[in-house]
Amino acid sequence: MNIFYQPGIPDGILYLDGDESKHCVKVLRKKAGEVIRLTDGRGFFYDAVITKADPSQCSFEVTQQMPAPAKDHFIHIAISPTKNADRIEWFVEKATEVGVDRISLMDCKNTERSFIKTDRLNKVAISAMKQSVKAVLPQIEDHLLQFSEVIEDCQEKEKCIAFVDASNPLHLKEAARPGTSYCVLIGPEGDFSEEELKTAIEYDFRKVSLGPSRLRTETAGVVACHILNLINL
Amino acid sequence: MNIFYQPGIPDGILYLDGDESKHCVKVLRKKAGEVIRLTDGRGFFYDAVITKADPSQCSFEVTQQMPAPAKDHFIHIAISPTKNADRIEWFVEKATEVGVDRISLMDCKNTERSFIKTDRLNKVAISAMKQSVKAVLPQIEDHLLQFSEVIEDCQEKEKCIAFVDASNPLHLKEAARPGTSYCVLIGPEGDFSEEELKTAIEYDFRKVSLGPSRLRTETAGVVACHILNLINL
Repeated sequence: MNIFYQPGIPDGILYLDGDESKHCVKVLRKKAGEVIRLTDGRGFFYDAVITKADPSQCSFEVTQQMPAPAKDHFIHIAISPTKNADRIEWFVEKATEVGVDRISLMDCKNTERSFIKTDRLNKVAISAMKQSVKAVLPQIEDHLLQFSEVIEDCQEKEKCIAFVDASNPLHLKEAARPGTSYCVLIGPEGDFSEEELKTAIEYDFRKVSLGPSRLRTETAGVVACHILNLINL
Repeated sequence: MNIFYQPGIPDGILYLDGDESKHCVKVLRKKAGEVIRLTDGRGFFYDAVITKADPSQCSFEVTQQMPAPAKDHFIHIAISPTKNADRIEWFVEKATEVGVDRISLMDCKNTERSFIKTDRLNKVAISAMKQSVKAVLPQIEDHLLQFSEVIEDCQEKEKCIAFVDASNPLHLKEAARPGTSYCVLIGPEGDFSEEELKTAIEYDFRKVSLGPSRLRTETAGVVACHILNLINL
């Protein structure tokens, strides 16, 4: 099933943007009168009928609005960008598929990349949302946040920092309870500094383990998302 | 920590192969007398002392052999290759990081790729094994297997096929019990055919769900691996 994306539907924008129009009319050869399904990325799916199959601005008329299934949890992953930009894009794609509500890119002491193309990450998230037939586009901050901003501004109820040391922390699947909001911090290749760990703990973040394997940053991010989705099944 | 790979240590091969020697001597500038850690990918780590720091054939002497932590489960993922070769390489990398024992590439009715560079997949697995400090290299079949071969030859105790339909199957995390061997079949982009599903069920495979999200093939493979690792924590 093909899903098209138009975030402006609730504001009355009833046409597809350039790339989406092209895909709909040129690639899939949809004609006026045909039915398409859309999402606004804000929690709704729509059925619509194409009124003008213009490859640069395909217009439609909404026939039905359907809310996505209700969810009682919210997953926020704050992650350090990886040195290799592909790996963080991959994280955004897979976290979106598995289920994530908010992604923050976080600048830590050992972070090796200070520039992030958030436009590109948004495109990856939109594509993954459509691919996995979801109606909620994860929020992605449009710039790199400082580690201190993330922990000071954190609004989620369950706050965790993925960090394994000799004190052998609790596994995230045991630490988190279902039906609430979560923020999990995922560190850079060189891990969080001792100072960062100390600060996070002062702000009520709990140290959690993601299992016995040593995981790359982007893998840890996806695994954390997946664990939180599993405990909320 | 850097881990080097030499599968022949149990057979008395006490030098690193070309790329590994180069990495050890040229990149990391290791000298004779320095201690390195190795794995044979067959369940053991080794401490060794470099005897000749030759960038084309770095020799060493083993000082200690250490078995990897014992495991009471075995995870076999049989997966259809994806149209885009990068995606299946990515699956091999992430499954190895998360923990997988055997990977079969499986040719299904809707599989769109009939050629697989297993050499390349092996390299990806070796790199991921070293990266995640594991001592067991997943077995990867050196050719594409037919769907029928996979289900007829399956030796694992718990046999599952990832397939969601109106009969709403059990989630893998409920279906599988800990401490045994598993085989999970992951279908191609166009999913398994009705005929394949029927045959698998005749061979005692159970239909399982991997959760409410529609996942890409490679994501489904990693998610299945991760669920089986979680229930065996």
